[in-house]
Amino acid sequence: MFIIGKEEKNYEIDEKGVNNLRGLALDMIVNAGSGHGGIILSSAPIVYTLFKYHMNIDINNLDFVNRDRFVFSAGHGVPLLYGIDYFLDLLTLDDLKSLRKINSKTPGHPEFGTPLVDFSSGALGQGIATSVGYAIASKYLDKKTNNLVDYYTYVLCGDGELEEGITYESLALAGTLNLNNLIVLVDLNEVTLDNKLNVSSSEDLKKRFESIDFNVIECDDSVKNINESIETAKNKNDKPTVIFIKTKIGLYSKYEGTNKAHGMVPDAEDLKNIKEKLGLFESSFTVNASVVSEFKEEVLERGKNKVLEFEEKYQKLENKDLIDKIIQNKNTYSLGNLDIEYDRKSLRELSGELLNIIANDFDLLIGGSADLSSSCKTNLKEFDTFSSSNYLGRNIYFGIREHASAAIINGMALAGLRPFTSTFLVFSDYMRTGIRESALMNLPVLYIFTHDSITVGRDGPLHQPIEQLTSLELIPNLKVYRPFDLNELIGCYKEIFEHKNPSCLILPRESKEISEYTKSSGVVDGIYEVIPNDTDNFINLIANGEELGIVLKVSKNLKEIGVDNKVFSIPCKKNIKINTNELFMGRKTIGITLGSPNYFFNITNDVIGMNEFGKSGSNTELLEEFGFTEEKLVNQILELLKK
Amino acid sequence: MFIIGKEEKNYEIDEKGVNNLRGLALDMIVNAGSGHGGIILSSAPIVYTLFKYHMNIDINNLDFVNRDRFVFSAGHGVPLLYGIDYFLDLLTLDDLKSLRKINSKTPGHPEFGTPLVDFSSGALGQGIATSVGYAIASKYLDKKTNNLVDYYTYVLCGDGELEEGITYESLALAGTLNLNNLIVLVDLNEVTLDNKLNVSSSEDLKKRFESIDFNVIECDDSVKNINESIETAKNKNDKPTVIFIKTKIGLYSKYEGTNKAHGMVPDAEDLKNIKEKLGLFESSFTVNASVVSEFKEEVLERGKNKVLEFEEKYQKLENKDLIDKIIQNKNTYSLGNLDIEYDRKSLRELSGELLNIIANDFDLLIGGSADLSSSCKTNLKEFDTFSSSNYLGRNIYFGIREHASAAIINGMALAGLRPFTSTFLVFSDYMRTGIRESALMNLPVLYIFTHDSITVGRDGPLHQPIEQLTSLELIPNLKVYRPFDLNELIGCYKEIFEHKNPSCLILPRESKEISEYTKSSGVVDGIYEVIPNDTDNFINLIANGEELGIVLKVSKNLKEIGVDNKVFSIPCKKNIKINTNELFMGRKTIGITLGSPNYFFNITNDVIGMNEFGKSGSNTELLEEFGFTEEKLVNQILELLKK
Repeated sequence: MFIIGKEEKNYEIDEKGVNNLRGLALDMIVNAGSGHGGIILSSAPIVYTLFKYHMNIDINNLDFVNRDRFVFSAGHGVPLLYGIDYFLDLLTLDDLKSLRKINSKTPGHPEFGTPLVDFSSGALGQGIATSVGYAIASKYLDKKTNNLVDYYTYVLCGDGELEEGITYESLALAGTLNLNNLIVLVDLNEVTLDNKLNVSSSEDLKKRFESIDFNVIECDDSVKNINESIETAKNKNDKPTVIFIKTKIGLYSKYEGTNKAHGMVPDAEDLKNIKEKLGLFESSFTVNASVVSEFKEEVLERGKNKVLEFEEKYQKLENKDLIDKIIQNKNTYSLGNLDIEYDRKSLRELSGELLNIIANDFDLLIGGSADLSSSCKTNLKEFDTFSSSNYLGRNIYFGIREHASAAIINGMALAGLRPFTSTFLVFSDYMRTGIRESALMNLPVLYIFTHDSITVGRDGPLHQPIEQLTSLELIPNLKVYRPFDLNELIGCYKEIFEHKNPSCLILPRESKEISEYTKSSGVVDGIYEVIPNDTDNFINLIANGEELGIVLKVSKNLKEIGVDNKVFSIPCKKNIKINTNELFMGRKTIGITLGSPNYFFNITNDVIGMNEFGKSGSNTELLEEFGFTEEKLVNQILELLKK
Repeated sequence: MFIIGKEEKNYEIDEKGVNNLRGLALDMIVNAGSGHGGIILSSAPIVYTLFKYHMNIDINNLDFVNRDRFVFSAGHGVPLLYGIDYFLDLLTLDDLKSLRKINSKTPGHPEFGTPLVDFSSGALGQGIATSVGYAIASKYLDKKTNNLVDYYTYVLCGDGELEEGITYESLALAGTLNLNNLIVLVDLNEVTLDNKLNVSSSEDLKKRFESIDFNVIECDDSVKNINESIETAKNKNDKPTVIFIKTKIGLYSKYEGTNKAHGMVPDAEDLKNIKEKLGLFESSFTVNASVVSEFKEEVLERGKNKVLEFEEKYQKLENKDLIDKIIQNKNTYSLGNLDIEYDRKSLRELSGELLNIIANDFDLLIGGSADLSSSCKTNLKEFDTFSSSNYLGRNIYFGIREHASAAIINGMALAGLRPFTSTFLVFSDYMRTGIRESALMNLPVLYIFTHDSITVGRDGPLHQPIEQLTSLELIPNLKVYRPFDLNELIGCYKEIFEHKNPSCLILPRESKEISEYTKSSGVVDGIYEVIPNDTDNFINLIANGEELGIVLKVSKNLKEIGVDNKVFSIPCKKNIKINTNELFMGRKTIGITLGSPNYFFNITNDVIGMNEFGKSGSNTELLEEFGFTEEKLVNQILELLKK
C-alpha cells in the first residue's frame, strides 16, 4: 500500500478529492434549492487541504481539548465542511440531503451542534475576530499548563470580508500580541456579492497585513501549494500568518469570476457542465471511495498521534487543575464569604473589587477593556498585562476596538475560559453583532458596561445611553443585570458566575448609595419588594440601577403626603418568572427609568422615562432638566394618579 | 503694517497664538471642573494652524455653502474650537465660561448649534467616516456644478482613534474613490486613555495608509511645519492625504506623555506651572490682543476672497438649480402621480422602482449599499457607479462596510444631499452608532433594510432579525417605517421625502401581497384601521409589515368562527399621535409580530411574538415551527381570549 507521508503526497488523488468535495457540496445546494455555489467552487481546495493535511482533530472525541480550531468565517460556504464531515463519517448522506431544512444537522450557515463547527458564523467579520479569541485563549492555556495546549486556529474568509471593520480591529491586535498560532486563509477571488472587489476597495492587502505584523504568503489554489503554504506558516512561527489563495469564484459555472456566482445554485445544464469539467459523474451525491478512505485515514492517523502526544504531556503535568476544568467544562464559580467593604465607594469601584476577588481565586477569569479599564474599574490588580512577552497576563488591552473585544471574548469562551470585556454602556452599540453571537451560542461571557445613563457627567448626548438598556434586554438569551447597590451587586456576581449565560452588568458612573432594604437574593427572582406598603391603599413604584436611589427618596416623600406605596427593584428582568400582575395586586404601578420607557414592557405602561437624547451638563442640571428630581418625580406621579 | 502673505509668515506670533489657545482652553475646563486637558495641550497647534492658514470660512455667513469643513472627530478636544470661535468673535467669554453647562453654546463635545461645528462628534471613529461623506458629497456637487463646490474636508483625530474599525472601513473607501479633497490630521501622541498606544497596537501607521492609497506626510507640531504639510497635501492633489503630527499629550503638565493626561483637569499648581512654560500670564481667560486680531484678519481676508471667487463662478453657472437647493436647504421632494405597476412584484422590488422614480427627478438623491444593492434593490438604474473616474455616478458601492456606510451618509446629508444606504435588517446592528448619529443630528438620511424577519429563506439565525425592529424604534427621532404592501409603501416614500427626518424603511424578502383595504394615507397617522368590525362585539388585531398579510387571513378565519375583529396596521409607530386606547374602544387588543413583543409597548401587552432566535429552514417550515401559520395563530388568539 502506498503510504502518504510528509515528504511524499499523492496530490493527484487530492485534486480528485477536491473536485469530489465540490460536486458533493453542489449537490447539497441543488437539492436544497438554495445556497452559495460561488464559494463552494472556489474554497473547496482550501477546506480540503486544511482538513486532510493539517487539522489535528480526534474524530472519536470531537471535544478533544487540544484539537485545532477551524472557524469558517465565510460561513455561507459551510456545505464544504459538511462534505468533510461526510468524508469522516461524522454526517450521513441523509444529513447532507437535509441541508437548510429545519432542525437538521446541516443548517444554512455553521451552527453549533454540527461536528467540526467551532463557531456559529455567517455575519461577516465575526469569525475573524472570534478566531483571534481562540488564539489568545490557547496562548494563555498553553502557558498555564507547561505547553500542553498548543493548537492552531485556522480561519477562512473571503477577500471581501476583509472590508469589515472588525477584521482590522481584531487582526491588528493579533499582530500586536504576536499570535503565531493563528493562520488566516483568504479565498482571494476578487469579487463581492455586488460587484468586482476593486469597485469598493483598492487596498493593497499584502501591505495591509505587513503593517500589522503578519507573515504574508501568496499561492494558487492547488492542494500542493496550499499545503506547502500552511506548512511554511507553521514553520516560520514568528508571527501570525495570512495566506492569500488565488481562486475563481464559481469556477467552471456560467457565472465564473463574477458577482453573480455568489448566491448561485446551478441549474441542471450548468451543473452538468461543471461536473464534466470537474471530471465527475453526473449522478448526485456520489464520491470516489478511495479518495474518501485515504482522506479519513490521514486525518485519523494524525489525530491519533496528536491525542497520544497530548495524553503523554498531560500525565506529566503536575497541576492538572486548570486543564481539567477546561476538559470537564467546569467554568462556573461560587462566590464564598466576601471580604469587601462598602466604605462609600462607587458601585463601579466595588464591582472592580468583586471582579478582583473572583479573579484571584478563579483562573478561568481573564479579560480587559476597550480602552476604558481605568474608568470601568476592570483592571485585575494582581495580574500583568497580557502581551506577546507575557501570555500569563490576565489584563487584555483590546484597544479602542469595542466590536472586536466582543467577538474576541466569544472565542475565548468557546475555548473554555470565562472572559469579560468592558466599556461605557453607550458604546455597547458598537458591539451589537458580537453580543448577539454571544447570545446565540449562549456563551459564558461577561460584558461590564458602566456610565449607564444621562448622569455620566458633562460629556453630552453621544456619551449618554438612552435606548441601550432596553435594546440589550431585547436580545434573546442575554441576561442583563442592573444592580442598585453593593447588596444587589453581590447578588449579580453570584448569579453570573454560578451560571453559564452571556451576561451584561450595567453600572452607573457615580452612584455610591447603599440601602438597608436591598438584598442580594433579589437578583435570583429578577424582581423583588424593597419597601413594603404600610396601609391597604397603595401604589407600586419600580426601578433599577441608580434610579432606585431616587425612587427610595420619592417613596418616602409620597408616604409623607399620604400616598402609600411599595417599591420594587428589578436587578435582572430576564430572571422574572412570576406573574407580575399578582405581585402588583392590581394597584397602579409606575416604572421610573432614565432610559427608554419600553424597558417596562409587560410590567407596566405607566412609565416615567426618557424618549429623547440627553444633554451636556452636570448631573444636578440634567436631573432637573429631564424631570428626575425628587420634587418633579413626586409631581409627575401625582399627575399619573389622577388619570 | 506687516502683511501676512503666503511666502512670509510670522510664525513667532503664531507660536504665541497656539499657547494662548492652549491657555484659554485649559481655563475653560478648569472653570468647568471637567474636560480633557491632554488633547488641549497636544492638538492646539493643529487646530490653530488649520484655522489660521487654511480653513476657508465666511465668519459673516457660517452656512457659506463652499466653506471648508472641519470635523473634530476627537471631539473631547472641543474647547480648542471654542477658543477659535472666541478669536473670531463667534463666541463670547461668557460662552467659554459656560463650558459643559446645560443648554450652553459650549457643550462637552461638539454639537450642532455652535459656530464652526460641522459634526456632533465624540463617539470615536464616527467623525472620520462622516468626513469621508462630506468629501464624497463635495465631489458630486462639484461635478454637477461645473467645479463650483471645491471645498476641503479636514478631520482631526488622535492616533488611538485609528484603532476603531470604522476608520479603516471609511478611509479605505476614501482611498479607492481617490478623494483628494480629504485631509486627515492625526494627533500622533502615542497614548490612549488606558495605556501607551503600543500596548494595544504595533501597527505601522504609515504603511497602513499607503496600503489604502493615501499620501502620507509626517511632521512635528510647529505651526510652520503643520502649515507646510497641509500646503503640500493640497499641492500634491493626487490622493487623499494623512498628516501625522507628532505631539505630546498633556504637554508641560505633570502627566505629560502619559495616559493620565487624557481626562486631566490641571490643579492650581499644575496650571500655574503649565502656563509658566507656555509663557502665559497666570490670570485666566486672557489672550494676547494682537495675536487674536491678526488671526481674525487672516481668516476674514481669506474667507472674503473665497466667497468672491465662489460668487463669480456662481454667476457664470448656467444651471443653478441644484446648488440653489443646497444653499436654500431645500432637500425635500414631493412624489407626484406615480407610474408604477404592482404586477405581483415583491415589495423590495417595488421599493426599488419607487426609489428610481424619485432619483430620476431629484438629483439630491444619491446612495448605495453595503454590498447588497442587488438584494435590497437599491440600484439607481439610470445612473453610473460613483467612482474616482466618475463623480457624477449616483450608485455608491460602500463595500462590506455597513458601519462606515451609515456614518458616510451622515456626512453627505450634512453637505445638503438626501443620501441612502441599504443592507439586510439584521446587519443594522453593525451600524447602530452611525444610525444614532443620524438621529441625534436629525439628518435627512434613509436606511433601507430588507430581509426583515425569520422569513429570509434558509440562511438561519444570524441572518434572521428578531430584536432589530424594536431596537431601531427605540432610538429617539428615528422614524421607522414598515409597510405591508405597495399602497403603504407609497405612503412611506411620500412621508420620508416630504420631511427631513432620519428614516428606516424596513421591507420583507419575499412578500408580494397587496390588499384592497390598505392605504397610503395611513402612514401619516402611524396606525389605521384596515378591516372594520361587523358587530358590536369584537377584538382588535394589530400588525405591520409582512405579518399583516397573515393577520388579514387570520381575521377572516376568526370572523368565520364568530370572533368578530378589527385589523389595524402600524406602518410607522413614531407617527402615532392619537390615544390608541380610544382607538381600541376598550376591547381586547392583540399584537402579532415576528419580532420582539416589546414593539407593542404602550399599545398592547397581549402580543404573539418571538422571544427566541430563528432557525435555518424554509419559510413554511419556520412559520410552522414558531406558530405563525393561520391555524396556529387562530388557536393562540382563542387562548388569549380565554384569559
